[in-house]
Amino acid sequence: MGQRFIEQLWDHPWFELSSLAASERSAGKKYREAARWRLENELPAEVGDMKVVNVDPKEVQADVVFSALPADEAKKAEAEFAKAGFAVASNASAYRFDPDVPLMIPECNADHLGLVEVQQKKRGWDGYIVTNPNCTTIMFALALKPLMPMEIQRVIVASMQAVSGAGYEGVPSMAILGNIIPFISGEEEKVEREAQKILGTFDGDRIVDAPFDVSASCHRVPVMDGHTEAVWVEMAKNPTPAEVREAFLNFNPGLSDLPTEPKRPIIVRDEVDRPQPRLDRNAGKGMAVSVGRIREGIRFIAMGHNTIRGAAGASVLNAELLSKKGML
Amino acid sequence: MGQRFIEQLWDHPWFELSSLAASERSAGKKYREAARWRLENELPAEVGDMKVVNVDPKEVQADVVFSALPADEAKKAEAEFAKAGFAVASNASAYRFDPDVPLMIPECNADHLGLVEVQQKKRGWDGYIVTNPNCTTIMFALALKPLMPMEIQRVIVASMQAVSGAGYEGVPSMAILGNIIPFISGEEEKVEREAQKILGTFDGDRIVDAPFDVSASCHRVPVMDGHTEAVWVEMAKNPTPAEVREAFLNFNPGLSDLPTEPKRPIIVRDEVDRPQPRLDRNAGKGMAVSVGRIREGIRFIAMGHNTIRGAAGASVLNAELLSKKGML
Amino acid sequence: MGQRFIEQLWDHPWFELSSLAASERSAGKKYREAARWRLENELPAEVGDMKVVNVDPKEVQADVVFSALPADEAKKAEAEFAKAGFAVASNASAYRFDPDVPLMIPECNADHLGLVEVQQKKRGWDGYIVTNPNCTTIMFALALKPLMPMEIQRVIVASMQAVSGAGYEGVPSMAILGNIIPFISGEEEKVEREAQKILGTFDGDRIVDAPFDVSASCHRVPVMDGHTEAVWVEMAKNPTPAEVREAFLNFNPGLSDLPTEPKRPIIVRDEVDRPQPRLDRNAGKGMAVSVGRIREGIRFIAMGHNTIRGAAGASVLNAELLSKKGML
Amino acid sequence: MGQRFIEQLWDHPWFELSSLAASERSAGKKYREAARWRLENELPAEVGDMKVVNVDPKEVQADVVFSALPADEAKKAEAEFAKAGFAVASNASAYRFDPDVPLMIPECNADHLGLVEVQQKKRGWDGYIVTNPNCTTIMFALALKPLMPMEIQRVIVASMQAVSGAGYEGVPSMAILGNIIPFISGEEEKVEREAQKILGTFDGDRIVDAPFDVSASCHRVPVMDGHTEAVWVEMAKNPTPAEVREAFLNFNPGLSDLPTEPKRPIIVRDEVDRPQPRLDRNAGKGMAVSVGRIREGIRFIAMGHNTIRGAAGASVLNAELLSKKGML
Repeated sequence: MGQRFIEQLWDHPWFELSSLAASERSAGKKYREAARWRLENELPAEVGDMKVVNVDPKEVQADVVFSALPADEAKKAEAEFAKAGFAVASNASAYRFDPDVPLMIPECNADHLGLVEVQQKKRGWDGYIVTNPNCTTIMFALALKPLMPMEIQRVIVASMQAVSGAGYEGVPSMAILGNIIPFISGEEEKVEREAQKILGTFDGDRIVDAPFDVSASCHRVPVMDGHTEAVWVEMAKNPTPAEVREAFLNFNPGLSDLPTEPKRPIIVRDEVDRPQPRLDRNAGKGMAVSVGRIREGIRFIAMGHNTIRGAAGASVLNAELLSKKGML
Repeated sequence: MGQRFIEQLWDHPWFELSSLAASERSAGKKYREAARWRLENELPAEVGDMKVVNVDPKEVQADVVFSALPADEAKKAEAEFAKAGFAVASNASAYRFDPDVPLMIPECNADHLGLVEVQQKKRGWDGYIVTNPNCTTIMFALALKPLMPMEIQRVIVASMQAVSGAGYEGVPSMAILGNIIPFISGEEEKVEREAQKILGTFDGDRIVDAPFDVSASCHRVPVMDGHTEAVWVEMAKNPTPAEVREAFLNFNPGLSDLPTEPKRPIIVRDEVDRPQPRLDRNAGKGMAVSVGRIREGIRFIAMGHNTIRGAAGASVLNAELLSKKGML
Repeated sequence: MGQRFIEQLWDHPWFELSSLAASERSAGKKYREAARWRLENELPAEVGDMKVVNVDPKEVQADVVFSALPADEAKKAEAEFAKAGFAVASNASAYRFDPDVPLMIPECNADHLGLVEVQQKKRGWDGYIVTNPNCTTIMFALALKPLMPMEIQRVIVASMQAVSGAGYEGVPSMAILGNIIPFISGEEEKVEREAQKILGTFDGDRIVDAPFDVSASCHRVPVMDGHTEAVWVEMAKNPTPAEVREAFLNFNPGLSDLPTEPKRPIIVRDEVDRPQPRLDRNAGKGMAVSVGRIREGIRFIAMGHNTIRGAAGASVLNAELLSKKGML
Repeated sequence: MGQRFIEQLWDHPWFELSSLAASERSAGKKYREAARWRLENELPAEVGDMKVVNVDPKEVQADVVFSALPADEAKKAEAEFAKAGFAVASNASAYRFDPDVPLMIPECNADHLGLVEVQQKKRGWDGYIVTNPNCTTIMFALALKPLMPMEIQRVIVASMQAVSGAGYEGVPSMAILGNIIPFISGEEEKVEREAQKILGTFDGDRIVDAPFDVSASCHRVPVMDGHTEAVWVEMAKNPTPAEVREAFLNFNPGLSDLPTEPKRPIIVRDEVDRPQPRLDRNAGKGMAVSVGRIREGIRFIAMGHNTIRGAAGASVLNAELLSKKGML
């Protein structure tokens, strides 16, 4: 995950990678010595040469801090950075449900940034924390956004999740080769709560959750990257598959050319057997969610790159929105 | 599939493998020359030496005929065999929805065999056809049986299906290595109709379908054997997960020791991450359906061996029931 | 393979894709209807709209024709095109061992193009055929080139070959999921003869084979793209691993910036566990061969993208050399 | 590995599982609580209920102790057990090259047990240590045994090794899904030394190594169980492939029905594409080595189950030999 952040940022048009912070074990080393690079794109020499610092606001020089910390470390560290005046774009789950912290997908709820003022006032922080959702939530929550006018009542999601979502050592090969593991610790709980906040309404003071239920079943599959989700959506207005397809096609979040924003956040695949992770995960440089097989029910498939759209790219897109809004 | 039939039958305590019939291309050859053996268990020499005959009632000597023909060939051939006096235990989909043909899972609807008399009367056949369901249907339909008293209203199934379900040449490796294909031709249509007939009521003349809806989304995954299914069941009586678990544990189909019948047709796994195809598909010699992760919703996972419980073993179990009932 | 050709050519700086020819079954249709696109990069709309023509010199407009035909069809068709005046850059095996047909890896034997004149004289053709080697040969033959001064005597190659080498329908998933197939039909025979011709000497009239033996064992592995090869090279000069590494690093084929030519045709990986197909196959846009683990023996690993460096890209690089030399 | 030991021993006809010893972290717990069971065969309830003890001779009741300890822990612990009078059948590498410790494959060198007396005399131990080789060595060393009369001079081995060889957490799925890792730490060094000792001659006092060289290249592949090896053997007598095949077929180690001993330790597969790990690893209950594709060179493929024949089963077979010889 940290590596995907570096990849998203190293040639970013707006941001410059100024500091790399990690646990004490790594601090003080050059990045190339602190970590083994695992991505296909080669680590740029200048990033490899950067010295890793401690996760300490005093050691970091930046306008915005990206966090891929484990939830428990994030709780403490992100507050320290926010207090010290940094904007924190966090991929961690620690603050997602704090009522004064926005849980953002820019294409869905850019106006939730209004919470930042509430947050700073309440906590007395100079900086602030903005979070993005869990990788599984992002794929279907983005797809639900254009369906909101049809009055969503209930959502059922069966996910088939890539191994990269668990980190490099997360899933042993003996566990998953030729196998399915029908369980991912803590995942269903997150997935079942996040979409309602993301698609909720900011009333000037807090978010009023969107009024639908989500029931999830999360499964690990032997796929490297790309979460595939079978989604059922019950809507009061009872649209046809053609109407749902139309809503997806017409979806225009009205952002203004953020660098990481895909041309189309939702790509509709009309082939009978798409989207597929191998073929579609890199659509929109990994930032588009591909949907397909829109059937009566309403049922459809949503698929996106879990460590780009679902994690590092999500945080970077949030930070771009902050920059655009003059909040950095 | 034909190979799984041979494997199920070659040392069967009640049946003897008397004839192997196949298309013209193979007829006349020894079996070992007509087909390339693909299973881990070695082909017994005496089966390899059997001469393959044509799919023609005049060339076959048997009390019961097992059919793994493609649907279109099955339509014609199975009728010819039934007319000629054979009992046909078919895994093909051709006759599953004919109102006078039983669609059987012995643990669910042994009484549907009453249809055989209706069938023979109506068609003037000396023999008859008995079918078993699609491999995906069997896993969750068997799991639904003990829940019937709780008044099932709606079922949602997301399947993660093994490649063996498509036959040896069915899924190219380039299609599925590290990938998910969210489409299996014709599968959802079958899955959505079969359970209601299986769990329906025989009124002496016909089957009255069970009154629930099924909505399926079927996906191919890089797993060799074993279909995993995420199942949601809405029931009028609104049971708790504990009550559903209890119903699974107490399920006793009351058959009397058919050779292929597993000791427990439904095995409840209480571990947090089971059932898994690699670990659980061979439970009950491949004939048990394992369930787990019974959660509010009601949601659970059902998993079984798709070419044994879901195909060859299903037909053989049907034939054993016919034998037990004196119908062969 | 045809699809990789299209991908290599659609935005080529020197070549323009003018005709797509295929068997009668496809001829007359738009390309998008004749073939199902299987690559991650989307098929450009204008290529999808091209009408497929017959494999007939009269229907094709081009300076150079790329052939990915099966060997038997290639025999006839490539001769017809060469006779009709086309330059044929062939990936097929049909003509590789004809003494007047160059078997080319531009970085190894650009001077073998001298055979073209011999070929035209002998056969009375206006055009000519230039071939590239089998995908497995290319990886280690390129790596052998800088070792030629050390007097290679014997080469042993154990290949671990990706499924894409067999074509989309070539390897069923049931054959290869979690498995190794220690056999690829006809492969070892090709691999054992090609390198000697490629690394042989053009004496103005014919190729004198390089004087070493090759012994190969070819294996299919569950990898999508990228052939990995364990190579042992016995050399009379008995170099140390460090000297071999140096020879790889200093290798400069002296071509002049052909568009498809990688900056470094041989990339030396010094990490203990590289090259790996997933991480290294796209090096040099799929045209570099990565080597590593150079050990006493001399043993090393060579790895390259089998359908780019090993097939479509190889033919395109050959054609670029032809263009550069003014032969088109 | 420990789990495979339990599986091999729980219904063993000669041995009874009397104690389970593990590190302090596990000691004192019931086995089912100390370890998560990962094999397809269910853990027997009575084994799950056994209390795990410390790796301490005073806590263990047994005639023979099986060790699957890491090399460094094995060094100390195995000596303590041997000193305390236990027979130690070790799968660890710690003592394999001690000149007074036999490195055994019963079918190859049962007479090396004569070293035990040397060992006890030299060390003053009441018990002793007997080791088995590395999993990769066993497959080809067993295959070399019947070729010894043809005067082996040089052996080259390219291994394609299953992930289970590295233990449950050993190979992350992100490292190996759709990938090859051409490196296994320390493996080639072991493989290159062990066969010569195993196939060496016991001269009453020590082992005189067999006079051939081994050069290995070891690779990890996405296979669950079963090591596949491409083997080249240079022999002074220069046999034909047919003569090599004959030698394999005629191989009879002359043991007398040890329970774990396969009927044929070497199975010759004549099909063009065998052995394959998925189809052949369980031959002889996982204790047979399958060979095939015997070609000029001499080249062939050897394949066996790495955690049964290559580890737990190897140690158990050693212990059976000890028992048979009255050494327990």
